[in-house]
Amino acid sequence: MQKECRIIEALQNKLTYRQRLQYMKHYFPINYTVNVQFEEVLRASNITRLRDQNVSELSLRCLWLSVNSQVLLKIGAVLLEKHLSWEYIQDLCLLFEHLAEEYEDCNQGNVDTNVWDVVEQVLTGDTGSGQKAVRPKALLDNCVKVMWMLYSESCK
Amino acid sequence: MQKECRIIEALQNKLTYRQRLQYMKHYFPINYTVNVQFEEVLRASNITRLRDQNVSELSLRCLWLSVNSQVLLKIGAVLLEKHLSWEYIQDLCLLFEHLAEEYEDCNQGNVDTNVWDVVEQVLTGDTGSGQKAVRPKALLDNCVKVMWMLYSESCK
Repeated sequence: MQKECRIIEALQNKLTYRQRLQYMKHYFPINYTVNVQFEEVLRASNITRLRDQNVSELSLRCLWLSVNSQVLLKIGAVLLEKHLSWEYIQDLCLLFEHLAEEYEDCNQGNVDTNVWDVVEQVLTGDTGSGQKAVRPKALLDNCVKVMWMLYSESCK
Repeated sequence: MQKECRIIEALQNKLTYRQRLQYMKHYFPINYTVNVQFEEVLRASNITRLRDQNVSELSLRCLWLSVNSQVLLKIGAVLLEKHLSWEYIQDLCLLFEHLAEEYEDCNQGNVDTNVWDVVEQVLTGDTGSGQKAVRPKALLDNCVKVMWMLYSESCK
């Protein structure tokens, strides 16, 4: 867990409320939204429900990782390199890439079937279940809340 | 004309290509648009057409002034105070306010009837003729091109 926790700590330092507010709210037009897949809105309540269904913690982390990697790409895709939030998103993308390297066992064999279906859907960009317009800050707020649920115990 | 020309010069310095690019393109999401009235898209070609109809120069300047005062308010309305383009828009608004003080004769008596109708429509926010989604930089590009047409001779 040690390397994993170091990356989580770096993510936590990068995803403080102050930074989310500045880069994802103040630097965007009022009410601006990004289109994401329905499944990419991964809230704390989704995690609670999946835990009630006895989904494994590895599966939940794989889900959170794949969802938020895609979310960051989608936010990054609406920004020009010279936008002041661009570098912030790139830094986060890089941390998620590092984290993905630690999760080589995020594959069909190790992840619960129902969660794997969602992971695949997110990664292939299959929008069969519809799109949702969500504010960038709300997306990163979800990312942080779920990160906290998944790692606060094991990365104290 | 002297005070008027000083304000136009200040506007010119504030509306350089570099600044329009930075504040109105780089600092906005890709393809972001602002809704404006159809009449608020005042292009160089509109001025040429109106001049062909022998509309007075005062009428054209009043039109340009009222259109762009509204356009700036609409761009400003999508920005939070902490957005990096907010102050830029406020500075421009202030210069347009100063300019408006020099145009006390922009009234129904002095402005050609057909132009006055448009001015009134723009100022009352009457969207009877429909709205148009336009990129902020395109709006300020129009502002600059028309400013050049209206003032380059008299404010050399």
